[in-house]
Amino acid sequence: MTTLKKYMDEKSQLFEPYLLNLVEALSAPEALKESMSYSLKAGGKRIRPMLLFAALETFDGKPEKGLEAACALEMIHTYSLIHDDLPAMDDDDLRRGKPTNHKVFGEAAAILAGDALLTYAFQVIAGSTAYSPEQAVKLIQMLSFAAGPEGMVGGQMADMEGEQKNLSLSDLEYIHHHKTGRLLSFSVMAGALIGNADEKETALLEKYARHIGLAFQIRDDILDVEGTEEEIGKPVGSDESNKKCTYPSLLTIQGAKEKLKEELQKAHEALGSLNRPAPLLKAFADLIANRVS
Amino acid sequence: MTTLKKYMDEKSQLFEPYLLNLVEALSAPEALKESMSYSLKAGGKRIRPMLLFAALETFDGKPEKGLEAACALEMIHTYSLIHDDLPAMDDDDLRRGKPTNHKVFGEAAAILAGDALLTYAFQVIAGSTAYSPEQAVKLIQMLSFAAGPEGMVGGQMADMEGEQKNLSLSDLEYIHHHKTGRLLSFSVMAGALIGNADEKETALLEKYARHIGLAFQIRDDILDVEGTEEEIGKPVGSDESNKKCTYPSLLTIQGAKEKLKEELQKAHEALGSLNRPAPLLKAFADLIANRVS
Repeated sequence: MTTLKKYMDEKSQLFEPYLLNLVEALSAPEALKESMSYSLKAGGKRIRPMLLFAALETFDGKPEKGLEAACALEMIHTYSLIHDDLPAMDDDDLRRGKPTNHKVFGEAAAILAGDALLTYAFQVIAGSTAYSPEQAVKLIQMLSFAAGPEGMVGGQMADMEGEQKNLSLSDLEYIHHHKTGRLLSFSVMAGALIGNADEKETALLEKYARHIGLAFQIRDDILDVEGTEEEIGKPVGSDESNKKCTYPSLLTIQGAKEKLKEELQKAHEALGSLNRPAPLLKAFADLIANRVS
Repeated sequence: MTTLKKYMDEKSQLFEPYLLNLVEALSAPEALKESMSYSLKAGGKRIRPMLLFAALETFDGKPEKGLEAACALEMIHTYSLIHDDLPAMDDDDLRRGKPTNHKVFGEAAAILAGDALLTYAFQVIAGSTAYSPEQAVKLIQMLSFAAGPEGMVGGQMADMEGEQKNLSLSDLEYIHHHKTGRLLSFSVMAGALIGNADEKETALLEKYARHIGLAFQIRDDILDVEGTEEEIGKPVGSDESNKKCTYPSLLTIQGAKEKLKEELQKAHEALGSLNRPAPLLKAFADLIANRVS
């Protein structure tokens, strides 16, 4: 077992019960809690919360201090998947091999479960005793920026508008930087903030986060061409059949692989300039660039 | 022109451009901003932001200090209307006499505009320079509680589950207290918080808010029976044709009117115990109980 795998297993034991307990503790209709929990439990890889913990521990912060921010982050990631899967959006029946939220609970409950997770994310950070008011406000500012119209939601809209159009490489980067990049960045930046990283360190981590964000998306596009349905939990080749503009379609598969290598290289360089060891973040960059699912 | 009408006109001149400018200032796809603005401009009565200003000025706070909280509040109210109108929810084509968001922009853009407004609401408060970090965190805590699974979204789910069932009066009050009451309460409590009301004053305003919240809903149900389509901007009698459980259906129209009068009375009593004059809040209670649309 690699060190990173061991690290993630350890952190999962802290994170998973805490996350589910936050929903369990809600004074809300059972049907809503069930729908929220179903998608939270649907077995993601928890890359975002784990990145947050890894960044936090790079600055010697206690992982317990990252719990609420990590849970809020995973709630927002999960809400975005629930809404993306809706019939009016991507109309997906399966997610990670399981029926999507609206397939199980119906569209109305799925819309509400998404809205509830998004709203609760901010409640969890604002209600945490782990953060000073200054930290909580800054975390909420960063998270809402990353997730909202200037981040994930804006990227999703740009993605929809770009469907079946010929996009340039810079259009594609705009979409990914907003749709997935900013929330991945938040993972790293939140860890740095809670760990009291200084200004220079924060700037280097921002650079690191940007490159692994791009690497993440390029790898996603490559997997859609080269992965197996069993590995990635959804049909392969869906980008091509949807005529979606991707890194392989713009750069060829070989060009996409080269770009992925470059982004990984730049992520490592940013870490190399930190005046402290960052083995976990290094391993994360490799994981993101080489993952098979 | 009544004093309250004059007050609301004045505050509108402060509030409306500020609200629209917040969306205009976003660095986000134009299509998303357009969809967000469309619903924000669709001409609501702005009862919630106006209540916030009125509560704030009761404690001698400057209205400018209330702007960001009032805009966030209206964004959240607006997002909830956009999502409620969706085909999977209430499937409404008209809202205040205008085509609903998804009718104009399509379902996907309407879902995203709602998500964007909800997320941006927290960004606006967290990014405001009008609040201390302590105030901002408290405002976000109160707003997310009022809007999320323990408030509006939870009430919406309970409402859906209760459709076409026989509800008791206490079921009905649970639904309304969560679905509309908590956000109305936030309006008043946020004004009190920003105006630095003390503990006793805050408790009295909480009582006032609870009673006007109920009065608001009872009046809504009465209007659905007695209003005209022209006045209320949607078909009358829709509750009865949907077999919806309402105050008139549970208490008779006469009983509902008596309960409305009682709630109004209790709201006035709470204000009467304040050690300061509160003419605006008094006038608001009357407006809510007697409105014709």
